Amino acid sequence: MEDPVSNLINTYHELNAAVVDELDEEPTALGFMRFLAKNRPFVARHAARQWKAVKDWNTDYLRHAMENEAVAVAVTPHGNADAVVEQEDGSLVFVEPHETFELFEHFLGDVQAGAEAVEQDGSNVKYAQTQNDNLRNEYQSLYVDVPKEIPFARIALNEGADAINFWLGNQRSISALHKDSYENIYIQVRGQKHFTLLPPVEMPCVNEQLLPKGRYAPSVKDSGKLEVELDHEAERVPVALWDPDSPSKLTTPYSHMAKPLRVTLNEGDMLYLPSLWYHKVSQSVGQEGVAVAVNYWYDMDFSGQFWASNNFVHDVLSAEQSKPAYPKLEMDGKGL
Amino acid sequence: MEDPVSNLINTYHELNAAVVDELDEEPTALGFMRFLAKNRPFVARHAARQWKAVKDWNTDYLRHAMENEAVAVAVTPHGNADAVVEQEDGSLVFVEPHETFELFEHFLGDVQAGAEAVEQDGSNVKYAQTQNDNLRNEYQSLYVDVPKEIPFARIALNEGADAINFWLGNQRSISALHKDSYENIYIQVRGQKHFTLLPPVEMPCVNEQLLPKGRYAPSVKDSGKLEVELDHEAERVPVALWDPDSPSKLTTPYSHMAKPLRVTLNEGDMLYLPSLWYHKVSQSVGQEGVAVAVNYWYDMDFSGQFWASNNFVHDVLSAEQSKPAYPKLEMDGKGL
Ligand SMILES: O=C(O)CCC(=O)C(=O)O
Ligand SMILES: O=C(O)CCC(=O)C(=O)O
Repeated sequence: MEDPVSNLINTYHELNAAVVDELDEEPTALGFMRFLAKNRPFVARHAARQWKAVKDWNTDYLRHAMENEAVAVAVTPHGNADAVVEQEDGSLVFVEPHETFELFEHFLGDVQAGAEAVEQDGSNVKYAQTQNDNLRNEYQSLYVDVPKEIPFARIALNEGADAINFWLGNQRSISALHKDSYENIYIQVRGQKHFTLLPPVEMPCVNEQLLPKGRYAPSVKDSGKLEVELDHEAERVPVALWDPDSPSKLTTPYSHMAKPLRVTLNEGDMLYLPSLWYHKVSQSVGQEGVAVAVNYWYDMDFSGQFWASNNFVHDVLSAEQSKPAYPKLEMDGKGL
Repeated sequence: MEDPVSNLINTYHELNAAVVDELDEEPTALGFMRFLAKNRPFVARHAARQWKAVKDWNTDYLRHAMENEAVAVAVTPHGNADAVVEQEDGSLVFVEPHETFELFEHFLGDVQAGAEAVEQDGSNVKYAQTQNDNLRNEYQSLYVDVPKEIPFARIALNEGADAINFWLGNQRSISALHKDSYENIYIQVRGQKHFTLLPPVEMPCVNEQLLPKGRYAPSVKDSGKLEVELDHEAERVPVALWDPDSPSKLTTPYSHMAKPLRVTLNEGDMLYLPSLWYHKVSQSVGQEGVAVAVNYWYDMDFSGQFWASNNFVHDVLSAEQSKPAYPKLEMDGKGL
């Protein structure tokens, strides 16, 4: 008999094409529910074209709106906020970015300068990516330029957004493969985002491991340089080690079965990224050297069997891995 | 670590109360999609109260509408159509009913007479339960009295009903625990139906086994008596052996974890029975000695991860069962 986990992934692929459905307009609430019910993504091309943000945001506009405002900025040596870093001793650590608070215009200038920088120029990479409802807080002077809610989502889910986030960075920042327990509506405003998506049933492919946590911090010797500071108090966190762009490294026996979906968002496009989908995200800057996006997180529904089923896949894998390695049985008909 | 299958069932129960949600009117298409997305049942009380069928059907009306029409009737010794029967040698067989074609009024008379019969009077039990779209075929003269579609379901699913079925029987017929790969909208017209429901994640509780198939057929010696005729050609079929009303018989190690949902439909009530839910159904007759119902089957969606996840539970159980019984390891710290 075939291995149940392989069979799960194969059955999923037989029933679901590894492509993101393309809509040419925003869905209705009912149309959205059809995707949500299946936990399948879509991209609605140009759906946000009429948004004031999409029409008007340029660096002058942003600089003016955010004049004299300080914002939280993630600073990393390689554009690797919330990512796995290999230590000198070969061990892996999940490292959060160094966080600074700086004037928006200063931050914006650095992002634009970084867009011009040659790779590996040694300068740190800055990214506004706090994911803490920052568009209704730090960036509230820009919140007026986007809808207060995504109407089809608010109606379908019968609840308001849990967080609305503003993202600003350049091509040097990459969000490593991870998942969120949110229904995510993601809108590209300037530049492009390149999403690589894996459905929740591909959990066995992504090599989720518990890693110690760390954080980038300025080096004592050279405060312009960031070093990993281990957090010895923190609990280990589950992290996907496999990278769909380096598919032969850090694999599990199932990694080769993954069929990543790839989609690029252009200015004005809207992506529905369903709860618990793994996503890796890179970006390209627009004319002014920035990539800007906005996203709406709606709470996922833990009822029904979706959450419980994904948990079950996790538990079956763990049971598999924690099993003592029995000696291979000789099938000689003598039994045990 | 806890057993993954137990954990699945427990997690499901933690996130979902073991009750059928009660609505006091038909849901909208969007409201329906919310239940469908979670694969959770509801009962909409009195939702069909305005249907002509619910207002007008009585035995005179039915007899008149179906005058001179022959219909297919399931005949069984104990009201056990599509049920497990224990053979004399103790083996179990999945037995389909004997099927007769008879004048509707003759059949109706027998059902009414059966409603009065004392239990175990030895007479056979008749049930109209063909589930083959009979309301749009054999019973089409009654089809005019019900809506052509369930509007909220047709709109939500964007498809017409795959089958619309008419059911007529008495308290002697019981439909044994089984599941269907359909979204089912079930309306009680006369009498009551008593549903016992189990969610798909309780598959490990129901003791699904592959059984040989058989059919009731008139005995050669006494054509009024029905006997099981084994079908030696037919493939074995998966059948749930556990009965929520005899919970200590034919159990699996998980049966005690099941939390059956129970709901009674009264005249004019509508049940949404989601795809792949196990259901056992008994009935009580109305004033005229019949229980009459109508149901609409809409194709379920096999895409997304719902089908694949249920398959996975099945495969994990099978792998568990087919595993060689390893000797228990002594955990003495010496390893292997
Ligand atoms: O835009 C990014 O860099 C990452 C987006 C993301 O991870 C999210 O929206 O959850
Ligand atoms: O009404 C009954 O006896 C059984 C109903 C049923 O099994 C169904 O609608 O699928």
